[in-house]
Amino acid sequence: MAVQADTPIGRWGAGGGGLDARTRAFAEAMLGPPEMAPAPMLREVSPSRTPESGWSRIAPEVGIETDDAIRARHSRGMSYLDLLAWRDDDGPLPAVDAVAFPTDHDQALALVQGCAREGVVVVPVGGGTSVTGGIDARSGDSAKPEPSDQRPVLAVSLARMDALVDIDRHSRIATVQAGITGPQLEKALDGFTLGHFPQSWERASIGGFIAARSSGQASGGYGRIEDMLIAATLATPVGTWEVGGYPAASIGPDLRHVVLGSEGTLGVITSAQVRVRPEPSVKEYAAALLPLRAGDGDFALASDLACALTRSPLRPTVLRVSDAAETSALLSMSAPTGIAGSLFDAYVRARRALPGALVILGWEGDDAGTVAAARAFARSVVGDAGGVWLGGKPGRSWERGRFGGPYLRDELMDSGYLVETFETAVRWSELPGLHARLRESAQRALGERSYVMAHISHTYETGASVYFTVLAGGWSDPRVAAERWRAAKSTITTELVDAGGALSHHHGIGRDHAPWLGEQIGPVGSAVIEGIRAAVDPDAVMNPAVLRAAP
Amino acid sequence: MAVQADTPIGRWGAGGGGLDARTRAFAEAMLGPPEMAPAPMLREVSPSRTPESGWSRIAPEVGIETDDAIRARHSRGMSYLDLLAWRDDDGPLPAVDAVAFPTDHDQALALVQGCAREGVVVVPVGGGTSVTGGIDARSGDSAKPEPSDQRPVLAVSLARMDALVDIDRHSRIATVQAGITGPQLEKALDGFTLGHFPQSWERASIGGFIAARSSGQASGGYGRIEDMLIAATLATPVGTWEVGGYPAASIGPDLRHVVLGSEGTLGVITSAQVRVRPEPSVKEYAAALLPLRAGDGDFALASDLACALTRSPLRPTVLRVSDAAETSALLSMSAPTGIAGSLFDAYVRARRALPGALVILGWEGDDAGTVAAARAFARSVVGDAGGVWLGGKPGRSWERGRFGGPYLRDELMDSGYLVETFETAVRWSELPGLHARLRESAQRALGERSYVMAHISHTYETGASVYFTVLAGGWSDPRVAAERWRAAKSTITTELVDAGGALSHHHGIGRDHAPWLGEQIGPVGSAVIEGIRAAVDPDAVMNPAVLRAAP
Repeated sequence: MAVQADTPIGRWGAGGGGLDARTRAFAEAMLGPPEMAPAPMLREVSPSRTPESGWSRIAPEVGIETDDAIRARHSRGMSYLDLLAWRDDDGPLPAVDAVAFPTDHDQALALVQGCAREGVVVVPVGGGTSVTGGIDARSGDSAKPEPSDQRPVLAVSLARMDALVDIDRHSRIATVQAGITGPQLEKALDGFTLGHFPQSWERASIGGFIAARSSGQASGGYGRIEDMLIAATLATPVGTWEVGGYPAASIGPDLRHVVLGSEGTLGVITSAQVRVRPEPSVKEYAAALLPLRAGDGDFALASDLACALTRSPLRPTVLRVSDAAETSALLSMSAPTGIAGSLFDAYVRARRALPGALVILGWEGDDAGTVAAARAFARSVVGDAGGVWLGGKPGRSWERGRFGGPYLRDELMDSGYLVETFETAVRWSELPGLHARLRESAQRALGERSYVMAHISHTYETGASVYFTVLAGGWSDPRVAAERWRAAKSTITTELVDAGGALSHHHGIGRDHAPWLGEQIGPVGSAVIEGIRAAVDPDAVMNPAVLRAAP
Repeated sequence: MAVQADTPIGRWGAGGGGLDARTRAFAEAMLGPPEMAPAPMLREVSPSRTPESGWSRIAPEVGIETDDAIRARHSRGMSYLDLLAWRDDDGPLPAVDAVAFPTDHDQALALVQGCAREGVVVVPVGGGTSVTGGIDARSGDSAKPEPSDQRPVLAVSLARMDALVDIDRHSRIATVQAGITGPQLEKALDGFTLGHFPQSWERASIGGFIAARSSGQASGGYGRIEDMLIAATLATPVGTWEVGGYPAASIGPDLRHVVLGSEGTLGVITSAQVRVRPEPSVKEYAAALLPLRAGDGDFALASDLACALTRSPLRPTVLRVSDAAETSALLSMSAPTGIAGSLFDAYVRARRALPGALVILGWEGDDAGTVAAARAFARSVVGDAGGVWLGGKPGRSWERGRFGGPYLRDELMDSGYLVETFETAVRWSELPGLHARLRESAQRALGERSYVMAHISHTYETGASVYFTVLAGGWSDPRVAAERWRAAKSTITTELVDAGGALSHHHGIGRDHAPWLGEQIGPVGSAVIEGIRAAVDPDAVMNPAVLRAAP
């Protein structure tokens, strides 16, 4: 749907459902009683500034909107701080000064080049689902109270560029406009699938997937977005830029990988060619429980299981292995986000599989025999590790709730709870140590009324990502919450980088991770990024505050 | 072995074997009688120039050699023009002015930074096997008769940096110095394998694989070098640069992919972390023949077969599908490079499989059951396409000869024949058309006494690479041959780019493909590459004439 006039402000869903009884009971027990938090609202935004020469000179053929409600909806993403901002009422919220809705590449190019010419900052907006501050109207340094950059800001929305342009069925390559969202694309593909299902799928756009270098829940079978991207076209301040176009090539650096993860800093991604596959005729899900001896003390067992399941041609399409804390939480919550009711819970306890690691598995394919072989392989690996096979029901339950996380976040925030995620990737040999260290660090940073849980979310031959969810009670005051968040984020991220983890596995840098980027990629890496930015954006108008390593 | 004092000059092997009788008969029939070409020799090289401040100030702790024979061995790669150059005797050959042999990263860094400081050009040399002019002493524009850049040139050889530093067996990551060659690495890995076997494997180094973005014969199972590279360390003029280090990450552009394919222009790659796998316990090879109706008229059948074999979790580790011309040539030549004797040939003809497409298949794995399933899958796909299964013998024959091409090239050049290869990649729907167009173009460019053949060499879900070998008779005069080569190369490469193919799939750009690079990656892509180069090499000392798009 991209960002439209009726998109809810400051929340993922329309809201109002409240917490279901089981989840509320879990939250109360772990985090203390709920508190009524201020509801998100379409609050006052900063007045629209106009470039010296007026908006009409930017790209006369493209309409530019300065309506407050439209500007508001294009001024923040879906990070915890973004959502909090709409619950606060401390004066007008810094907003973009205008929003443009190009309908094709040429219009996007005219806008970007016009902005460069007229000294206007450009913030590309796809689905608006960044969780790391990738969309943020303030063009200056967000860490300072007063932004140093006073240039007007134009959001360029891809909402009207949502067409499937072409499917080459023989080559299995789809060409799409970059504003097409996950559901729009899957529908248009008609018999084919991209196979890319991050939790943001319902709202995020293909351009956003590329810009954020995202990874979906079925990455074990379909790969990351970079495994799917054949080519991309960008509108940059110095002209049209096309990258890729070949199944593989040795023609110097692969500039697709410069565009992937560029987070709107190198231009507006206007279209892409992506690998698609026939929609699988067979889809199966299952779950298992791996008993763990002492709480999370031996997450190494779970890590080894994930590793063994991954290193085979018969690897599952979906693989997710929760630690003991997350397993316990998931078994306590009802569907859609939890997986089981009380009878199931009792069954699991009777089998002495708790404390344990919940393993979610999925297989997709065209050939029932191959899927059956893959399932049998997984079952034997789980059995060898001492795990209990729980069958298809809890797996399907997970599948039904796979996009439920952001809706639950709305409800938890309404009840004054902190709910935040962070994620990283590390080699297998370092994974259990990193998991323990970050759990401890997060627990310490959040204090007593908090709950820290994690799962292995994406696996590779050499390592995996670990995805943490943290909950805490008593965070109903938005301003206090923002301060506490900043302190905790800083502690945890510093620990994460020290532990050798990637600053992000699939959420990106945005503003939230930028302070650590320089340390992670080093001075030469930072200079290379700056060299690339200067080459395509000499006036530094493209998302200037994002993805910028501290000097 | 990297480049050592006893490395043959101007040829791959020690030589002297001559053409075997069957190959000679084939060449005579197709290309005309052999001619005696001048033998390659350690000819006179240009005198060693000294930087203004002398060699000793570059990096005092690293020995720098100016001996003529050592300089000669580090002045050219293994392209056809490179090999011809040693058969010519037209005055001294432009050579590097000195060669340094660092033993660790710090020495390489001191050299690179010393060269930048003192105005000396650096040519990194690994195994010295570039076939596209990636190693070439002339630092100026090679298209002009007089190089415009008169700075002294230092070759930095990685020959003394050939150690396996570490294997993380749990994560399956090996850390190696970049000068280690294919065979050295496989030996050192002891129970593990990198699985990267390009035809240059016997001499090429891991740093060279990365710099050229290479792809090995087992890429169906192990992927390309970019799928194996976890991290790399470079010595650049602006300091040490480390890229990567995570199984996957979303921390902005993936700078590994900037280093991959950088061809020595961004620094000296001094070490790398690569994914390794346990040495497979099962290795099987087989061959099949797919009848083609009319010569190469229906290479689409062969292309479709390759495509169907690739799009399965049971895809083969090795897959190579020859066109009718190459099939005929391979069946005419003896092992090691050909695959069969006359009895076999008769058998194939009796089965009416000629004209046909020879299919070479290989499977590697730890599990005999999975390998057997993959072989059965392949056999059924071949059967469905109307192909004849030839069993394991011709497959194993191919496997034994898999590194034989460069030795055969020596012998053919000794007999005055042109032997050259070019390769590209394109999506499946365009592959048969591109194959036909390039065959015709090459045939036309080379004239009557020539033979053009090709095979699909590496396959992907969305497309494949096509690898052409061209032979011609009467090319014994090195100077005439060089001129004819330039004309033919220009015609064929222009056609290749026009047909939508990648300028190279795994050989790289070097100098030979540089004139077309600008068209292929466009002005913005070229500006990005230049921006990256300027960031790490502000004085333009790193391989300045290589990978440079025409303005």
